[in-house]
Amino acid sequence: MACTPGYTEIEERRIETGIGWQEIADHIERPLVWTVAALLGSHPLHQKEAAAVGELLALSGESVAALQRQPYRTADPSLSTDPTIYRFVELINVYGPAFKALIHEEFGDGIMSAINCNVSFERRAHPDGDRVVVTIDGKFLPYQW
Amino acid sequence: MACTPGYTEIEERRIETGIGWQEIADHIERPLVWTVAALLGSHPLHQKEAAAVGELLALSGESVAALQRQPYRTADPSLSTDPTIYRFVELINVYGPAFKALIHEEFGDGIMSAINCNVSFERRAHPDGDRVVVTIDGKFLPYQW
Amino acid sequence: MACTPGYTEIEERRIETGIGWQEIADHIERPLVWTVAALLGSHPLHQKEAAAVGELLALSGESVAALQRQPYRTADPSLSTDPTIYRFVELINVYGPAFKALIHEEFGDGIMSAINCNVSFERRAHPDGDRVVVTIDGKFLPYQW
Amino acid sequence: MACTPGYTEIEERRIETGIGWQEIADHIERPLVWTVAALLGSHPLHQKEAAAVGELLALSGESVAALQRQPYRTADPSLSTDPTIYRFVELINVYGPAFKALIHEEFGDGIMSAINCNVSFERRAHPDGDRVVVTIDGKFLPYQW
Amino acid sequence: MACTPGYTEIEERRIETGIGWQEIADHIERPLVWTVAALLGSHPLHQKEAAAVGELLALSGESVAALQRQPYRTADPSLSTDPTIYRFVELINVYGPAFKALIHEEFGDGIMSAINCNVSFERRAHPDGDRVVVTIDGKFLPYQW
Amino acid sequence: MACTPGYTEIEERRIETGIGWQEIADHIERPLVWTVAALLGSHPLHQKEAAAVGELLALSGESVAALQRQPYRTADPSLSTDPTIYRFVELINVYGPAFKALIHEEFGDGIMSAINCNVSFERRAHPDGDRVVVTIDGKFLPYQW
Amino acid sequence: MACTPGYTEIEERRIETGIGWQEIADHIERPLVWTVAALLGSHPLHQKEAAAVGELLALSGESVAALQRQPYRTADPSLSTDPTIYRFVELINVYGPAFKALIHEEFGDGIMSAINCNVSFERRAHPDGDRVVVTIDGKFLPYQW
Amino acid sequence: MACTPGYTEIEERRIETGIGWQEIADHIERPLVWTVAALLGSHPLHQKEAAAVGELLALSGESVAALQRQPYRTADPSLSTDPTIYRFVELINVYGPAFKALIHEEFGDGIMSAINCNVSFERRAHPDGDRVVVTIDGKFLPYQW
Amino acid sequence: MACTPGYTEIEERRIETGIGWQEIADHIERPLVWTVAALLGSHPLHQKEAAAVGELLALSGESVAALQRQPYRTADPSLSTDPTIYRFVELINVYGPAFKALIHEEFGDGIMSAINCNVSFERRAHPDGDRVVVTIDGKFLPYQW
Amino acid sequence: MACTPGYTEIEERRIETGIGWQEIADHIERPLVWTVAALLGSHPLHQKEAAAVGELLALSGESVAALQRQPYRTADPSLSTDPTIYRFVELINVYGPAFKALIHEEFGDGIMSAINCNVSFERRAHPDGDRVVVTIDGKFLPYQW
Repeated sequence: MACTPGYTEIEERRIETGIGWQEIADHIERPLVWTVAALLGSHPLHQKEAAAVGELLALSGESVAALQRQPYRTADPSLSTDPTIYRFVELINVYGPAFKALIHEEFGDGIMSAINCNVSFERRAHPDGDRVVVTIDGKFLPYQW
Repeated sequence: MACTPGYTEIEERRIETGIGWQEIADHIERPLVWTVAALLGSHPLHQKEAAAVGELLALSGESVAALQRQPYRTADPSLSTDPTIYRFVELINVYGPAFKALIHEEFGDGIMSAINCNVSFERRAHPDGDRVVVTIDGKFLPYQW
Repeated sequence: MACTPGYTEIEERRIETGIGWQEIADHIERPLVWTVAALLGSHPLHQKEAAAVGELLALSGESVAALQRQPYRTADPSLSTDPTIYRFVELINVYGPAFKALIHEEFGDGIMSAINCNVSFERRAHPDGDRVVVTIDGKFLPYQW
Repeated sequence: MACTPGYTEIEERRIETGIGWQEIADHIERPLVWTVAALLGSHPLHQKEAAAVGELLALSGESVAALQRQPYRTADPSLSTDPTIYRFVELINVYGPAFKALIHEEFGDGIMSAINCNVSFERRAHPDGDRVVVTIDGKFLPYQW
Repeated sequence: MACTPGYTEIEERRIETGIGWQEIADHIERPLVWTVAALLGSHPLHQKEAAAVGELLALSGESVAALQRQPYRTADPSLSTDPTIYRFVELINVYGPAFKALIHEEFGDGIMSAINCNVSFERRAHPDGDRVVVTIDGKFLPYQW
Repeated sequence: MACTPGYTEIEERRIETGIGWQEIADHIERPLVWTVAALLGSHPLHQKEAAAVGELLALSGESVAALQRQPYRTADPSLSTDPTIYRFVELINVYGPAFKALIHEEFGDGIMSAINCNVSFERRAHPDGDRVVVTIDGKFLPYQW
Repeated sequence: MACTPGYTEIEERRIETGIGWQEIADHIERPLVWTVAALLGSHPLHQKEAAAVGELLALSGESVAALQRQPYRTADPSLSTDPTIYRFVELINVYGPAFKALIHEEFGDGIMSAINCNVSFERRAHPDGDRVVVTIDGKFLPYQW
Repeated sequence: MACTPGYTEIEERRIETGIGWQEIADHIERPLVWTVAALLGSHPLHQKEAAAVGELLALSGESVAALQRQPYRTADPSLSTDPTIYRFVELINVYGPAFKALIHEEFGDGIMSAINCNVSFERRAHPDGDRVVVTIDGKFLPYQW
Repeated sequence: MACTPGYTEIEERRIETGIGWQEIADHIERPLVWTVAALLGSHPLHQKEAAAVGELLALSGESVAALQRQPYRTADPSLSTDPTIYRFVELINVYGPAFKALIHEEFGDGIMSAINCNVSFERRAHPDGDRVVVTIDGKFLPYQW
Repeated sequence: MACTPGYTEIEERRIETGIGWQEIADHIERPLVWTVAALLGSHPLHQKEAAAVGELLALSGESVAALQRQPYRTADPSLSTDPTIYRFVELINVYGPAFKALIHEEFGDGIMSAINCNVSFERRAHPDGDRVVVTIDGKFLPYQW
């Protein structure tokens, strides 16, 4: 992640112009989390989308091309030690076996797809302090021969 | 996880009696994911709750006591290679940096708490195949001195 | 793997009776590789199948029950150093990136499912020495939101 | 992999010209998977083959030379976390012990060669979604003194 | 850490000018440990603070901008082998389980926040040799759904 | 840690009798954190102290002997993934380099001893939620030939 | 290795009877290194061979059966730190790349088989101190599709 | 290995001139494997030898100097995954404990030196396919105080 | 280490009888460090020595036999985190490269033997606090073909 | 280690001028091992010492400055596989537990300091081959609150 050749340029233009992630997502009519992940290098953009982002942020041709390349989505173990990301890792450590037990009870033997899967992010107001709400919505896939 | 002295007994009684996770959760008036995690050893039960589960599943006194002990919530790296759990790990690898970027944009510098945090699990019907929906809802905590 | 409580008993009975893997697979009308994997602890059997295997090999009730439990399919890194298994690991090291390039060229961005996937094994006669032929046949899953 | 000095140039020319992997394989009369692996740095090309690829894609002399060098085929652990490659790793974790059991039952003590071994890749149409079919065909080698 | 683009420049200016960490902290009215951590890349500075540090140490514009960026706070395992840092790691190894036992006895199930947390550093004179005194003061967070 | 042969017995007696850590520490006139660490296996007790603890908690002779043995204080990497302990690990990741910089500026080249070192633990009331306060107080040791 | 159920019994009988490895190898008409490896669990014996060893060393039926089972030849990383074994590991570290260069120059692209391979061990007298001579003799296998 | 500053130049000149490893070894009157290892960076050459290699291959002064420097002979774990080198690693995994048992039986407690040790490499013709023969010949060193 | 079957018995008898390590070493006329290492499982004793230790400490026959077996001297990574052992590890980290530079300057290319090597331990009185003095005295071995 | 910006320059000048480590140590009136370690980056020099070394070896101003900076003394795991350094690692593996046992018997619970510690290196002539003698002399530090 963050290795997309165009990434540094994107970040600089976002800071200069004050254009937020939601605005970019709306501009290319894609979901918010998908768009952020794509610009951080986890999903390739279609040519039109890359061009639209390029125009919005005045990116170089090289960056626009980079956004369209098929990425390697490799795990970077050092990233997962960043405290903001680590809390998600910890949740999987603590609740992962419960997810497994519930998936098997409810659906039978299989998995929740991480490919046919949307992830959403929103802020929920709360009197004791606002909350981050992340929803993972993936298709169940039964083991099937 | 799954090392709670009472765990094997719980699993056997659940299979024998056909009592599902939701029924146990309702019996102790706790959320579903919390209850499964607790019985798998990730949360301690209060005395009354442990007694109620013990009665429902006809557990031994030793198992009822074990459910009340303060657990070590240590990560077991081999568990995360189980395909059903691994898909959640992969989602963090692919979308973790996007979560970080969005949290910082929306809330400023800080984290989503993994402690003041509820996790829910539900099955959503879908014409192309039903879906697993996991929602993580955690309080934002700003870095604060 | 191989930790199924019933596994040692199965292995002993197979040696005593000389009943081969194909015969067991035919007995429960399941594919060969699936059956071996199931008896080694990677897939749960249905009650009827477990009973049928139990009868064929004269297994104890405990082993018949164990074959029906939902397994953890965790990776055991030491197993992958066994020379017979390691050759498959080496093939993924050498050809994995080529598989990725070909999947993306032919199907677009996505993966071959390891869940909706059959694996077959056969011996092919060859004048220079017979050959092991393993075929992996998995559904393509596009990244899809 | 992907470290062949000529790799980036090859990728750029393939995108510019739209020449597919099969076309390159046909041009040098080599199997498809072998050709992709070779251009990604896992097999050396003969001088004539390298020249033919160089002409087809208008590569520099340096890239043509690089394709002929004897490679180090070292494993890159981060690549195996890419979801498209990881599914093959997971299949070995789940079915590797079954392959071992079947090889030993059918052939006796030994291995399937990863050196005297062809790998093919094809797309198979299927009403529920097309499928990736990978066939591994390796010579059995008995332990032999 | 220490990867902030501006870090080398900061270090050189500090040596040239003899300006100490406390003086910088006072200049931006921030706690001492926070300030050092921020200049080593663990906390972002506000624009005014970055400008004030830039003026005090005559930093380049690039360094002043770098100090304001949201950092990745990733762990660098090699740093923890430096003897001065390792002693803190060793203390957690030796006393970590005691901290856990005391937190649970005193507060119930939960953690000490590492986010809502101040850390102070001081030198305490002592006849047998002066002492380093580090105080960690973090809010208790109960597990809460 | 927690492997002291007498540990399980100690924990059971503490739960039965309701005797807290501070009461045990007072009984043997040792600091609180030291006492907890000792009973968890990180420090050996003197014969008198072990006998006093044994009497207070009605421990077996074997447990009393175990408390006096010279321990191995080995790190257990899985313990450091427990969320309550991990927060301390994270603090060292985030602030360790700052501690190093401050120690060297204030004292010169050397370390804070982890051997000639006391650690205290207290609860501090706070209107926004009570706080855990851990103080580490170690002798500075200069590199000295 | 050394986990063969019969291994401890073999070792005890060898010490009691003073029967050396060469004598056992001669008794079953197998090469020396092969025989030692087999009795340490790296090669299965044929039924007759196992029976002959069983008779020679007066082994139990269980041990005789264990010697005939197909082994897992998994690597045990801790064994390779034993100084007597580590010297071989170090030789591969120091000379491995030279072996690769020489194999490729002399034979072309391929490997020396570790399966169709004999290993011999002998003591060579030398005035400055006797020498261990290990010869590895493996068939060259070219990469071949 | 292969990090000798002069290594790339050596490799290029060897390919251009077609001068083989044996010819270089003969030119400096050193054994074959030693010479290859030295030019790959595992042994320093004497000044005369370096000069002779430099003349034979028309190397730059910098490369000639590099060949004389005392090397770090550090292990590179990724190299050992190259299939040609890995087969030697696998042989140590499979036969290492047998070597240990035989050394101790024949010589008593001690090791085969990896320092006072020659390694030779030859091709042996064989009707079923030529063979690689590697001989390791090291002095036995008894544990000695 | 410390896994010698007889180890626990030895430790108990030493505590009961108050017999120190030096007394045991004198009893078998062996150096101090050698004797401790041997009783902890790093060196085999001769039959007479084992018998003498057995008599001195009134050990069981099983323990006396265990002391004579050829040990595996495998590294246990967790032991090296014990603070008393870790300080030696840290010294090698800090001074290892200096030892290498000095050995090569003084003796040429080679190593200090860890096999033909004595290690001594003594306490040296010092007004500022007594000191541990460990001397390592190993034969230089030149790389030699 | 060896990363001091000035290190390559120092090494080149030492080879050109033939100035040995002892001569440098005498020039700055520091112990031999300390001096080598300092020039390899493990100890900072005082300004005068750095200047004196700079003059002796005609170093650049940048190198003279680098020698005075406070170093990170981080462990580099690959260095410890160099055979000359590895022998020291192996000695700690084999004798570390014996050192621990002897320190505790002689001094009580505590450690040998690696900070208040001198290390010396000398060559001792011996008829069977000269010997490396390394002496570690560190202050005992008792656990002390």
